Amino acid sequence: MDVLQRLGQNIRRLRRARGLAQEKFALQFGIDRTYVSGIERGARNPTVTVVQRFADALDVPIAELFAEIE
Amino acid sequence: MDVLQRLGQNIRRLRRARGLAQEKFALQFGIDRTYVSGIERGARNPTVTVVQRFADALDVPIAELFAEIE
Repeated sequence: MDVLQRLGQNIRRLRRARGLAQEKFALQFGIDRTYVSGIERGARNPTVTVVQRFADALDVPIAELFAEIE
Repeated sequence: MDVLQRLGQNIRRLRRARGLAQEKFALQFGIDRTYVSGIERGARNPTVTVVQRFADALDVPIAELFAEIE
């Protein structure tokens, strides 16, 4: 699994754990839902500061978004 | 300290721990030395796949490049 897929799956897992639908998360996070969907599918290559915004929105350290998938 | 500065300091720390001068690291890594310098200074906002290349070159998990600075 490449780093973008792993990042996307971690974001999706954490978002769902917080009971947030993609639409609501995108609204709350102030970003386009299709962009969130693209990142969760591993189809986007975001910059570090965009990943940091996801980490802040999910209230986790940025390193956690790169954790290995069990 | 913002995420880009932290990333840069971690890359610099790990590069130096491997006894690699910036010039040699850039050559070995196949990237422009001024780009490496910019990232180490926290002045660049690389994409996730570029950060993954640094992690591979330093032989560490990508998450380690975002570790908190003691």
